Amino acid sequence: MEQDSWLSWKPWILAGLEDDGWRWDWTTLGCLREPDQQVRARLVAKADGVWAGDGCLRALEHVSREFGGEIRVSQNFFSGNRVKPGDLIATWEGPARLILAFERPVLNLVQYVSGIATSTRALCEALEAAWPNTGAPLPRVTSTRKTLPGYRDLAVLGVRLGGGEAHRVSLAGGVLIKENHIAAAGGIRAAVEGARKVAPHGLKIEIEVTNEAELDQALAAGADVVMLDNFSPEQVRSALSRVPSGAGRPLVEVSGGIRLETIASYAIPGVDVISVGSLTHSSRALDVSLLVDLG
Amino acid sequence: MEQDSWLSWKPWILAGLEDDGWRWDWTTLGCLREPDQQVRARLVAKADGVWAGDGCLRALEHVSREFGGEIRVSQNFFSGNRVKPGDLIATWEGPARLILAFERPVLNLVQYVSGIATSTRALCEALEAAWPNTGAPLPRVTSTRKTLPGYRDLAVLGVRLGGGEAHRVSLAGGVLIKENHIAAAGGIRAAVEGARKVAPHGLKIEIEVTNEAELDQALAAGADVVMLDNFSPEQVRSALSRVPSGAGRPLVEVSGGIRLETIASYAIPGVDVISVGSLTHSSRALDVSLLVDLG
Amino acid sequence: MEQDSWLSWKPWILAGLEDDGWRWDWTTLGCLREPDQQVRARLVAKADGVWAGDGCLRALEHVSREFGGEIRVSQNFFSGNRVKPGDLIATWEGPARLILAFERPVLNLVQYVSGIATSTRALCEALEAAWPNTGAPLPRVTSTRKTLPGYRDLAVLGVRLGGGEAHRVSLAGGVLIKENHIAAAGGIRAAVEGARKVAPHGLKIEIEVTNEAELDQALAAGADVVMLDNFSPEQVRSALSRVPSGAGRPLVEVSGGIRLETIASYAIPGVDVISVGSLTHSSRALDVSLLVDLG
Amino acid sequence: MEQDSWLSWKPWILAGLEDDGWRWDWTTLGCLREPDQQVRARLVAKADGVWAGDGCLRALEHVSREFGGEIRVSQNFFSGNRVKPGDLIATWEGPARLILAFERPVLNLVQYVSGIATSTRALCEALEAAWPNTGAPLPRVTSTRKTLPGYRDLAVLGVRLGGGEAHRVSLAGGVLIKENHIAAAGGIRAAVEGARKVAPHGLKIEIEVTNEAELDQALAAGADVVMLDNFSPEQVRSALSRVPSGAGRPLVEVSGGIRLETIASYAIPGVDVISVGSLTHSSRALDVSLLVDLG
Amino acid sequence: MEQDSWLSWKPWILAGLEDDGWRWDWTTLGCLREPDQQVRARLVAKADGVWAGDGCLRALEHVSREFGGEIRVSQNFFSGNRVKPGDLIATWEGPARLILAFERPVLNLVQYVSGIATSTRALCEALEAAWPNTGAPLPRVTSTRKTLPGYRDLAVLGVRLGGGEAHRVSLAGGVLIKENHIAAAGGIRAAVEGARKVAPHGLKIEIEVTNEAELDQALAAGADVVMLDNFSPEQVRSALSRVPSGAGRPLVEVSGGIRLETIASYAIPGVDVISVGSLTHSSRALDVSLLVDLG
Amino acid sequence: MEQDSWLSWKPWILAGLEDDGWRWDWTTLGCLREPDQQVRARLVAKADGVWAGDGCLRALEHVSREFGGEIRVSQNFFSGNRVKPGDLIATWEGPARLILAFERPVLNLVQYVSGIATSTRALCEALEAAWPNTGAPLPRVTSTRKTLPGYRDLAVLGVRLGGGEAHRVSLAGGVLIKENHIAAAGGIRAAVEGARKVAPHGLKIEIEVTNEAELDQALAAGADVVMLDNFSPEQVRSALSRVPSGAGRPLVEVSGGIRLETIASYAIPGVDVISVGSLTHSSRALDVSLLVDLG
Repeated sequence: MEQDSWLSWKPWILAGLEDDGWRWDWTTLGCLREPDQQVRARLVAKADGVWAGDGCLRALEHVSREFGGEIRVSQNFFSGNRVKPGDLIATWEGPARLILAFERPVLNLVQYVSGIATSTRALCEALEAAWPNTGAPLPRVTSTRKTLPGYRDLAVLGVRLGGGEAHRVSLAGGVLIKENHIAAAGGIRAAVEGARKVAPHGLKIEIEVTNEAELDQALAAGADVVMLDNFSPEQVRSALSRVPSGAGRPLVEVSGGIRLETIASYAIPGVDVISVGSLTHSSRALDVSLLVDLG
Repeated sequence: MEQDSWLSWKPWILAGLEDDGWRWDWTTLGCLREPDQQVRARLVAKADGVWAGDGCLRALEHVSREFGGEIRVSQNFFSGNRVKPGDLIATWEGPARLILAFERPVLNLVQYVSGIATSTRALCEALEAAWPNTGAPLPRVTSTRKTLPGYRDLAVLGVRLGGGEAHRVSLAGGVLIKENHIAAAGGIRAAVEGARKVAPHGLKIEIEVTNEAELDQALAAGADVVMLDNFSPEQVRSALSRVPSGAGRPLVEVSGGIRLETIASYAIPGVDVISVGSLTHSSRALDVSLLVDLG
Repeated sequence: MEQDSWLSWKPWILAGLEDDGWRWDWTTLGCLREPDQQVRARLVAKADGVWAGDGCLRALEHVSREFGGEIRVSQNFFSGNRVKPGDLIATWEGPARLILAFERPVLNLVQYVSGIATSTRALCEALEAAWPNTGAPLPRVTSTRKTLPGYRDLAVLGVRLGGGEAHRVSLAGGVLIKENHIAAAGGIRAAVEGARKVAPHGLKIEIEVTNEAELDQALAAGADVVMLDNFSPEQVRSALSRVPSGAGRPLVEVSGGIRLETIASYAIPGVDVISVGSLTHSSRALDVSLLVDLG
Repeated sequence: MEQDSWLSWKPWILAGLEDDGWRWDWTTLGCLREPDQQVRARLVAKADGVWAGDGCLRALEHVSREFGGEIRVSQNFFSGNRVKPGDLIATWEGPARLILAFERPVLNLVQYVSGIATSTRALCEALEAAWPNTGAPLPRVTSTRKTLPGYRDLAVLGVRLGGGEAHRVSLAGGVLIKENHIAAAGGIRAAVEGARKVAPHGLKIEIEVTNEAELDQALAAGADVVMLDNFSPEQVRSALSRVPSGAGRPLVEVSGGIRLETIASYAIPGVDVISVGSLTHSSRALDVSLLVDLG
Repeated sequence: MEQDSWLSWKPWILAGLEDDGWRWDWTTLGCLREPDQQVRARLVAKADGVWAGDGCLRALEHVSREFGGEIRVSQNFFSGNRVKPGDLIATWEGPARLILAFERPVLNLVQYVSGIATSTRALCEALEAAWPNTGAPLPRVTSTRKTLPGYRDLAVLGVRLGGGEAHRVSLAGGVLIKENHIAAAGGIRAAVEGARKVAPHGLKIEIEVTNEAELDQALAAGADVVMLDNFSPEQVRSALSRVPSGAGRPLVEVSGGIRLETIASYAIPGVDVISVGSLTHSSRALDVSLLVDLG
Repeated sequence: MEQDSWLSWKPWILAGLEDDGWRWDWTTLGCLREPDQQVRARLVAKADGVWAGDGCLRALEHVSREFGGEIRVSQNFFSGNRVKPGDLIATWEGPARLILAFERPVLNLVQYVSGIATSTRALCEALEAAWPNTGAPLPRVTSTRKTLPGYRDLAVLGVRLGGGEAHRVSLAGGVLIKENHIAAAGGIRAAVEGARKVAPHGLKIEIEVTNEAELDQALAAGADVVMLDNFSPEQVRSALSRVPSGAGRPLVEVSGGIRLETIASYAIPGVDVISVGSLTHSSRALDVSLLVDLG
């Protein structure tokens, strides 16, 4: 009912079953002692990380009923919780035919999203640990649009469950002028004015800049948000000194190759947003497995 | 026309555009100097790896025509080629409106598949380098079913372009009896016989074993392929000595946590297949970017 | 290629053909002298209004080719142009079988979108005519989310071709706190703060208020945009005097039952946006017809 | 279970949610005090009209369960009932997250269909009031095929709930030879004979005529139904005198710009059907709103 | 462009490729000498019958281009033509990868539809041969609604290409009151009156009767068409004597187990329609095969 | 939950309703005495055969609930059971509106699949009756890929319920080198080696041969399965004498025009598989009807 809605997971469980050609699962069809054989199975963490699969388990319950069986799930860990190797995340009970069919798609999904949550949590904690005690608000860590097509909802869910926030989730949900747009428009001022003219009045105008000269132009053009792209920590500090403060002050985002090893150096008051593409395109999957108990 | 068909890529380009809500790309709509502004863009590698996106560029050309524009692509590197930072993979020419809309979905896709190809190539080369000069055929490196739902075709494509091979691509395309099936069937013999009874006559019966006792039972039951799961290299050597040779000899697969650092130790004659799940669930994306040239 | 993309129209042409069960068009099948009979047809305006169907004619050409025939269209009037009764908007040439099948769906669509454009144009002109010569910028006239499901893209297109602008096109593309959200949150401050916390940093926080007390709270809470709902012109003037000016000044939107007869009275400097729901839910269709020339 | 089936409404509720990008409803996500916050809401008429949304409320209940929540609806007014401003049509109870998401799509739909029912009822009543006391049966008021693509089912539902009837709902469900078909066939006789030859034997052959000469030809060719297009009331009376009576007598339909102000003049015995395109393309939406009660 | 439109075939070619999991056609992938190997193939009849697959070959050409290759087809026989064993129906040229992929789906389709055309032709000819030389018009032979779901369009196409006609193609396209409807309505008169009330005015009211008493009631109720269900030829003759003649005379249909061996006995003047369910549910496929010539 | 899953049937019930345009079932809408009229109906066999529709009845129950009604089914006969004329297979209870809508699609489906099961059962019994008492295992009777697109799952289900087995269900699920592949590859050896190279290691390599010379080459190339295509019984015996026995012995399949009248002559020990295309492309439908009891 909130963002971790099982509705976001359901089509992907079905897609996984489709990939698997599950109707002709000869192995399972040959091994069941009876068509309705019931089993219990344990979903167990095999690595340290952040679990982010509640919605997937809700979808599993729901879809299993649509398939004419019923898999009942009870959970010990919930989305956002840390897990360590051996932790029993959840127990499934139901028909072996379905549990064996859903196993792989469900695991493939929860490993992916939990992997993203795990990476995000690590980054947020590193930032928080390095944050100076000045009273300045901690920046947001956000994802980018670098998500596998079709998986943006789930990828952003992983980021949020790890403690990060969404950047714009679509081109319709924010304005971000990048190098290519500037060139197309013929300059920073033209780009900012053009965007402001067509964009709905509820969207801020954000622009990516690659040096201080561009930053100055962006500020002069009235940008609401400036993104410092591939600025070193020193360059960020210098840039911040050029940004006005007070009412109507623009927000400052830093971006570009920031990773677990380097985020601490970007813990600079005045930075409002840190966006990290690798969260959604290169996080390692969290190892989780399903162990079926049979009687 | 061959396996790297653009048809496998097309739905995902469309899904990426959908994620992006591309019709309301306020930024681009605001920045174009004229609706039909034409541009040229360069697709450039930013890291070392194996390019695996030819089909995606074919899909880009095709889909752009369906969108009423036409993006023309000329390539310098082709699927299976190595690339290094700065290599100009391809040039795109066409309407700015479309090139800016397709940029992100295309990059998201080719980075993913090329990342898988890159990881696979590394693994294959490490295995080949370690392979003893005994005349025994080099084992296949294969993927598993640990692929993000919907992406199995593209993930396996990446593996094959990297030099690996497909394992069964669906439950309908192979029999693989695992621990859970054995328990469901009530034992190894029952599982093998049950599977052989219902499976089409053109499928071999493969069974996963976790120790030598199970291996012996599998061989006695007439398995066509045995998978040694999580066996150490020493355990693999010992197991191989129990497998019969000659006509009708079963194939031997090893699996379980094998990675770039350890694959050399599995370079053991008699092993036919090495399957590696991380290829498709945890490869790093290959960094590639698009630079628009404007006049 | 720009927003009036034929891609937005295509699915609705197909839906119209589907509604019609066009494959079993017994009337046409019985009346054609030969299966490939070619005809010419004239698309003619029957009323005064603003034409807004270029994209639909592009879609017609495109889809006709997908149907194995080819309807060629030449236009005399273009999206955004005014038309009057008798104006020959466009000529179609191609197979009678297809022209007779596409006639009704295309007319149904262009009449709808042109009707919206026509209403919007009238409203914009009435506002402009009444606008005082003070140098204050003319407010935007915008649509709302009161659009028939599935038709938002085309409805907003009609508004824009008529001279209006989009409000947020989706819940993801803007924040608008209404009466119900305030109650759910437990007050204006809680609502504004809650929304600011979860919304992407590129979205402004807009809030609807129904009286001056609420307006004051909204301003105190730091709203970026205030919407004065169902305020009389006098109430708008009074409210505007409470809104701060200068850097970071919030935008002011007025809304609620504004129509052609009353918009002039809202021509009040300081108003930034006037949103009008009836544009998209109750505009009259523009009368357009297709006359087939045979012979 | 009858024609007002919620199945006709369901895809459009989903389409409306899709238009809204409801998963990223930042406003609601930010305002809920707790994810499962429950509320009650009142659906209230704001204008005089005919309510025609029972099926939509059934669909709302059904779809809400598919979304993992449950909205319970109790109704005071039912499809076909008149409503006046302030009437409490129905009460909804359920999770705020869902009620706020479904509000706009449901309102957009019921306003549209109720608007059509309202216009149709007015037309039917005006006709009935003007009908002479001769014992001749009252003509049917019917819609046409001038419906927004995809919405034919719901538009015709609105007409029927208002007291009208369906004309053919698809090209497959009736034969109607119009001016263009006559020209394609090379004359009225050829058209009628051609249509009779290919059409299923259960369909009557209807033909549109624009003057008495055409009417005579249509009758001579054995048309089962004649449609008098754009005939004035006097022309209708004259035409009726030429139509044979007795067994096998053709039906007479009048059509063309008939509206609330003019329908009384077409209350002419002998007319069987009056078809009115504006019912489905230009009815005003019925104003209905949802008021959430929070506690 | 006419009813044998390739659009009706296209989705089924795609469904056949889907059934086949054509992307992983290991056999073909392993056997091609080069990815783009071109071949020529001959489509040859292996039995006597009526060819009915022109639309499928058009769809083949069209879809092959959508797949990035191009299969060019030249035909010697056309839909409606008779073929005998050995006749070269058509030649295909194009990429081996695609020709081998499309072979099976295309053959499966054309064999099915041609089989229906072949059975229909035989029935029509038997009827015509037995028809007495009285000047009475030959009855239509029609199909029924006994078609495999999804295949109604193609099944009816086969019937029409064989010389038969469509019965109503959908419930929306005709009224046919059967035994069950009579019981639901509480009698023949109630059923006829109920149907006439709700059905569009362009539909005749047809009713199925199983004996002369029912026939009399149907006629008295004003049925436009009567269907004599499972009447023997003698019973048909007797029934015909009770049906009025002249203007407004009802049509007479016979139905129920009529087959090639018995249709001659139903060659009775006064019968207007003979409907035969087995045409679409039990016709034998026409044997056709594809022979690839390679160089 | 096992292979006779109602999920395989559901989309086809929906497709049948779609073919029928069930929402506008004027006949039923006109005949119901009240919208919710409840009825009972009996599903009765009208011919001898094998019932194979359990899954369809489950789908009926399930889908009826999705349609807002509920059809309850109780069965006397189950999939795989023989039925004879007059047998009461099942009773349905529920709303007349739905039962009359679902009647035709359900009958069309169960007649088709039961027809396939019936033909298969006859073939298996004829084979078993003719099988010599030598202790050699009875061959499998299998279907082929000659199935109507979209219906492979249900067609193979019919075969299996009749006592047969699946051949490969897709190109991805087996390797079968046919004449055309041999030509493409340039010979039998090249084809076998090419296929073995790219096919997953769990697939056997099967090859179709048309004479003994080809058989010898196939055996020499190491084929795992040989298919003797269009061999007479004598040719089969001769061929069998050339096939090696013992460990690693290839399987032998015979195919080509085998039918009920001739299968006994192929009851030859050493044959492992008999595949029969006509089972799925030319079986007669099993006659089954629905009789509604009203009262």
